[in-house]
Amino acid sequence: MLNFTVGPVMSDDEVRAIGAQQVPYFRTPEFSDIMFQNEQLILQFAHAPEGSRVAFITGSGTASMEATVMNVLTPRDKVIVVNGGSFGERFVELVNLHHIPHTEIHLDYCQPLTEAHLAPLSGQGHTALLVNMGETSTGVLYDMPMISRFCRDNGLLLVVDAISTFLADEFDMAGLGADVMITGSQKALACPPGISVIALSPRALERVEQNQSVSMYLDLKSALKNGERGQTPFTPAVGTLLQINQRLRAIEAQGGAASEIRRIASLAADFRSKASVLPFELASPSPQNGVTSMRTKDCSAFDIFTILKDEYQIWICPNGGELRDSIFRVGHLGALTPHDNSVLISAMLDLQKRGIIQ
Amino acid sequence: MLNFTVGPVMSDDEVRAIGAQQVPYFRTPEFSDIMFQNEQLILQFAHAPEGSRVAFITGSGTASMEATVMNVLTPRDKVIVVNGGSFGERFVELVNLHHIPHTEIHLDYCQPLTEAHLAPLSGQGHTALLVNMGETSTGVLYDMPMISRFCRDNGLLLVVDAISTFLADEFDMAGLGADVMITGSQKALACPPGISVIALSPRALERVEQNQSVSMYLDLKSALKNGERGQTPFTPAVGTLLQINQRLRAIEAQGGAASEIRRIASLAADFRSKASVLPFELASPSPQNGVTSMRTKDCSAFDIFTILKDEYQIWICPNGGELRDSIFRVGHLGALTPHDNSVLISAMLDLQKRGIIQ
Repeated sequence: MLNFTVGPVMSDDEVRAIGAQQVPYFRTPEFSDIMFQNEQLILQFAHAPEGSRVAFITGSGTASMEATVMNVLTPRDKVIVVNGGSFGERFVELVNLHHIPHTEIHLDYCQPLTEAHLAPLSGQGHTALLVNMGETSTGVLYDMPMISRFCRDNGLLLVVDAISTFLADEFDMAGLGADVMITGSQKALACPPGISVIALSPRALERVEQNQSVSMYLDLKSALKNGERGQTPFTPAVGTLLQINQRLRAIEAQGGAASEIRRIASLAADFRSKASVLPFELASPSPQNGVTSMRTKDCSAFDIFTILKDEYQIWICPNGGELRDSIFRVGHLGALTPHDNSVLISAMLDLQKRGIIQ
Repeated sequence: MLNFTVGPVMSDDEVRAIGAQQVPYFRTPEFSDIMFQNEQLILQFAHAPEGSRVAFITGSGTASMEATVMNVLTPRDKVIVVNGGSFGERFVELVNLHHIPHTEIHLDYCQPLTEAHLAPLSGQGHTALLVNMGETSTGVLYDMPMISRFCRDNGLLLVVDAISTFLADEFDMAGLGADVMITGSQKALACPPGISVIALSPRALERVEQNQSVSMYLDLKSALKNGERGQTPFTPAVGTLLQINQRLRAIEAQGGAASEIRRIASLAADFRSKASVLPFELASPSPQNGVTSMRTKDCSAFDIFTILKDEYQIWICPNGGELRDSIFRVGHLGALTPHDNSVLISAMLDLQKRGIIQ
C-alpha cells in the first residue's frame, strides 16, 4: 500500500530494520545514552531556548496534549484556545475537563486566524494561549509570528501543538517565545505511532515544578526527573524510541531540520502543482507543508478514499464528521517521493475517467 | 543479546517480521477486524465472563493500572490494596493520588499473603480489592483462589494486575470472579512494549459507565465506545496491535492459553533445576512461572547483571532500591528455550569460577 495519510506514515528502510530487531532491555546506560541524544536533537531541531527539556510519553499526541494541560496549567489560569477544527476542539475539551478557565476563538473550518480575532482579547487578563500550529483536520497552518507577537505583548505562555508540523513547517521555539511544543512519532518523525514528545521552555518547566500532578502516568515532573538519567518512569515503547533516534540522526546527517522542512515543502508543492488538473479546490487558504486538504465538488470525498484503498492500494486520509463527504487530505510526511505523487495523481485521473471523480 | 529480563522480552520471528513492515493506516474496516479478533482472543484466554469487554491503551502497564483506578473506582469506595513490593506500592500511590479510601496490607519483600492477613478485614465495609497477581519485583505469585474466596464472601470487586502473569500462570477470570484483568504487550504476549490491555467484567463495565472520567487519554468509557467499532479514540501503537494479533493467533493455533502456560512453567522448572548448582536461594516461596528471583549470598546481584551484560551479552533483570544488591531476577517470558537457560547457567558458572559469584 502507498500511504498518503497524515499518520501513521511510511518509514524509511533503516527505521523499519530496527522494527525487525529484538527490543533491548532499557534500564541500562546504553539506552540512557540514546535518550539523551533524542532529547538533545529534539531541542536542537525545535530551536528550543537554553535550559529547555523534553519529556517522551508512551502514548498518542493527545496524551501529551493532556499532560501539558494537566502539568503546565492550573484552574488559576485563564487561557485562550484557538479552535478551528477537531484538534482545536480537543484542546477545548481538555481545558474544560481540567477546569481551566478559558476563552475560545472559534473559527469555521479552514478559516485563518487573524489580528481581528486576537485584538479584542488583548489586556483581558489571560495567562496562556493554546494553539494547534497546524489544524491537521483541515490542513490550516496558523500565522505563528502573529500569535507570538500577541503572546509577547500580553505576557502569555504559548503552548503549541506541533504534532503534524514539527520538521515539516518552520518552527523556532526560542524565536517565537513558545513555551511548549508537542509532537508525535508518527508524523514527520516518520516512525511507528506510540511515542509523543513534549519540549518545555524554562518558564514551562517552572510551572511543572510548582504544580501538583493529577495523574501518575501523565506526570511530567516524574518524566523529567527520570529523564535526567536518560530514563522514563515506566516501560516506554523502547523500540519506537530507538527508531526515533535513528531518524533524528539521519535528519541531522542530511542537513538538519531546515533541510527536512525544505524536502517536505517541495513534495507538497509538487503534489499541489500536479493536482491542479483535477476538479478539486485547495480547502486551506494557508496550507501546512505536511498535508493538502482538498474540497470535492460533485463527488464524495469518503468514496474516493474507499475506492483508492480497495482498488488502487493507496491510502489517502479521510475526514470524519461534517467534512466526511466534502474534504479529503493528502499527506506529504514520511518516506514519499515525487514519483509517489504521480502514482496518486494517475489513480485519481483514472477515477475521473471512470466518472467517480467529477 | 540474550534477554532474560521480565520485559521487554524476545519476540518470535513472525512478530519481528511485522515490525519490519510499514505500519498501515488504521481508520479502516480491515484494522477494526484485527481489533475485534484481539478483543475476542484476550477474553477467551482470560476466561472472562460473558459480556466482558477489553480496552487497549497505548501506554505502559501503569497507564492501565491508573485508568482502572480512575474509571472503575471512586472516592466513595473503600479498597484493600495488597502491597508486597514496587507494583503493590504503585497501586497504593494510585489510590492515594485519586483520593480512594483504602486499607493497605503491607507485606515484607517475598512474603506470601495468607488468610491471617485477610481475615481481620472481613466485614469492614470494603468495596474492592486490588492485587498484583504476581508481584513482579520479587516474583511472588499470590494465592488467587484464597483472594477470590475472600472477595466473594465480602462482595468485593476484584481488580487483578496480571501484567506479568497473563498467559504465564493459570488465570480464570470467571472462575475467580475477577472484575478487571490488566496486562501488557511486552510480557508473555512477547511483543514490543507500548500497549497495555484491560479486560473488564460486566460489573466493572457498569462502574465505568456510571463514573465521571477525570482524564481524556485514560477515559475507558471512550475507549470502550470506540472499541465497539474496532477502533481507539486516539492513534494507537498500530504496529504493536498487529503484532499482538499475530501472537494471539499463534498461541491459539498452538493449543491456547493453557498450552502457553505449560510451556512457560516448564521453562521455569528447567531453569530452577539447572540453577540449583549455583550458590543462590530462590527468593520467592511461591514463584510466578514468568520469573525466578534469586537471592545472592556474598556477591552483588547488580554486579552480576552488569558483568553478564557487558561481558557475556546476556541481560538478566536487576532490581532497584533496597533489593539492588541482594536480588536479581531471571525471566521465562518470550522466545526463550531450555538451551538458552543452559547458556545463562554456563555464564554464571564461569562467573563463579572467576570468583565474581560466591
